[in-house]
Amino acid sequence: MPLKDSYQLPAAADMHVHLRNAPGPIAQLVTPTIRQAGVDCVFVMPNLAPRPVVSVAEALEYKRQLQLIDPDVTYLVSLYLHESITPDEIRAAKKAGIAGVKAYPRGATTNSEWGVVSFEPFHDVLAAMEEEGIVLNLHGEAPCSCADGVTVMNAEMKFLPVLKDLAQKYPTLKIVLEHCTSAEGVAAVRSLGANVVGTITAHHLALVVDDWAANVNNYCKPSAKSPEDRRALLDAVINSNGKFFLGTDSAPHDISAKKGKGNTAAGVFTQPFALGYVLTALEEALQRGDIKDEAAVTQQALSGFFSEFGRAFYGVAPATRQVLLKRGGQVIPESLKGDGAEIVPFRAGEMTWSVEWL
Amino acid sequence: MPLKDSYQLPAAADMHVHLRNAPGPIAQLVTPTIRQAGVDCVFVMPNLAPRPVVSVAEALEYKRQLQLIDPDVTYLVSLYLHESITPDEIRAAKKAGIAGVKAYPRGATTNSEWGVVSFEPFHDVLAAMEEEGIVLNLHGEAPCSCADGVTVMNAEMKFLPVLKDLAQKYPTLKIVLEHCTSAEGVAAVRSLGANVVGTITAHHLALVVDDWAANVNNYCKPSAKSPEDRRALLDAVINSNGKFFLGTDSAPHDISAKKGKGNTAAGVFTQPFALGYVLTALEEALQRGDIKDEAAVTQQALSGFFSEFGRAFYGVAPATRQVLLKRGGQVIPESLKGDGAEIVPFRAGEMTWSVEWL
Repeated sequence: MPLKDSYQLPAAADMHVHLRNAPGPIAQLVTPTIRQAGVDCVFVMPNLAPRPVVSVAEALEYKRQLQLIDPDVTYLVSLYLHESITPDEIRAAKKAGIAGVKAYPRGATTNSEWGVVSFEPFHDVLAAMEEEGIVLNLHGEAPCSCADGVTVMNAEMKFLPVLKDLAQKYPTLKIVLEHCTSAEGVAAVRSLGANVVGTITAHHLALVVDDWAANVNNYCKPSAKSPEDRRALLDAVINSNGKFFLGTDSAPHDISAKKGKGNTAAGVFTQPFALGYVLTALEEALQRGDIKDEAAVTQQALSGFFSEFGRAFYGVAPATRQVLLKRGGQVIPESLKGDGAEIVPFRAGEMTWSVEWL
Repeated sequence: MPLKDSYQLPAAADMHVHLRNAPGPIAQLVTPTIRQAGVDCVFVMPNLAPRPVVSVAEALEYKRQLQLIDPDVTYLVSLYLHESITPDEIRAAKKAGIAGVKAYPRGATTNSEWGVVSFEPFHDVLAAMEEEGIVLNLHGEAPCSCADGVTVMNAEMKFLPVLKDLAQKYPTLKIVLEHCTSAEGVAAVRSLGANVVGTITAHHLALVVDDWAANVNNYCKPSAKSPEDRRALLDAVINSNGKFFLGTDSAPHDISAKKGKGNTAAGVFTQPFALGYVLTALEEALQRGDIKDEAAVTQQALSGFFSEFGRAFYGVAPATRQVLLKRGGQVIPESLKGDGAEIVPFRAGEMTWSVEWL
């Protein structure tokens, strides 16, 4: 029997979510699904369009708007690393309870056109973040470049020298390599100090390149890679040692952005069923033999990955509530429809685990 | 000046085309575009649905149906390697003028569910093909398998031991590694005798993985790979030595199969503008510096790749007509619409070269 039929776990923390503009049709549709998944704490990405969140005032207003949609979730809001941010703004961010600053390499993914070309000009800001204990959240991909041989398949690996350089220059800066997708990325995080961690999505535990090659709903940045890379991610979940925790990178896109005639938006939508997806992926990995040791998938490992490690890293109090996950209690709908938005969830039509709040 | 503004060339031969069932809506729409591209000889793939072409009678009937659509094209028709084919059928095929037998690894691509699991059971057929001079056309991909670490990104490389093994066992068998996509594939073809050649598509000269990751119309099997792989293909075109020639693998799919909610059909449609796509790709490669030596893109190299090498390999007489290609004379339409079919061409909306028959 690979996994148990049910798990009672502390409420989860999803340390990488996209809720989009609030108020807004996608935020209205997606935000109420956070708790549906067994999650009560989220780290919210600041890459709003047409303008990202670049000031404390904007971040606090964004948080207020999200609280209006569901007040029973803890929203850790963030800033988008941009030249308009000063060390003073970082200090103000700390006082205001803002948790992190997200850096996007320019052009690497959705809404990254405001992003970073080089970290050099941000030295004073990074130094202030290190001093204040504000987390640096990295979209860890080198921008794709044929001249440099960088493609969606190796962009994370090609970014790792930047990660290592930042970790060396700012030795106590808290850094998250967001949505790790490669064996090399996992190894890099492991090789660095306890202040450097990685988030892992639900879908990257299930997918390889073949699964998104022909399916727009499975395509995201960073893209899912090889079976070997997936094995490294699965191992990071069950042997985390606090270095890896859940960050779904749940990325809602209206169906029109996925199925249009032009380019397909990058992003996999996993918010409402986040924990179930992870359990299913672990079970499939056991069946494939990608996880050799059934005994390694412990209650403790799941509690740590889902809830404890992320909260501890961000200095959030441990969960006070528990959730009960039961195998196979729920069918993933073909789409979520709201006022002006329709979003296709990952693994639409499949069975997943049900979630009950205790 | 990277390329000339016009080229007068012998009519081209496209040694890998998909025309689908004839009569049929896609065949009616696509077959008339062969000559539009400057091509008057095509090697037609046998992977029809629901049943491939597995007998001489079926192949001849297919050819007759295609001739009804456009009688001014030379159709080299082929059989689909299948257990129902006997050595006698191979000898009959030779007499009937059938040019080749296509082998698909089972599950590797569109309509490959009838395909080959192992070449061992086909020994007598392959020996007869070697004796008769019937070409073996290989879809050179190992079936994707997480257990074996085979993905769309390395499936061609993982197939190469099979190619080498066949070349060794049947030393005079004429073999085509169809639609080469990798540096390793090109090197393998180069390392084998003159009886082993490779076809190269137009779109693989232009695309890398990033170009299909987010664009369903650029997705095909084998998939486009890295910038380094693309450089190897470009080099194979201009330094072919008769080992590489045009085979577009133009794969028409109705728009519904590309944009549906489920899986995306693999295939890039290039038939009507095949030569222009190649010239544009060569020009872009010169601009990027992927082809260092402008002087290598000669009239002779283009004539060989487009027309002479393929005909020579298949024993078809040299072209008797000439075509004049002129830079930028034509806009690629957003789609081709026929009775019951709509197909989006590669690089829709862009300018391409015009073709005039002399």
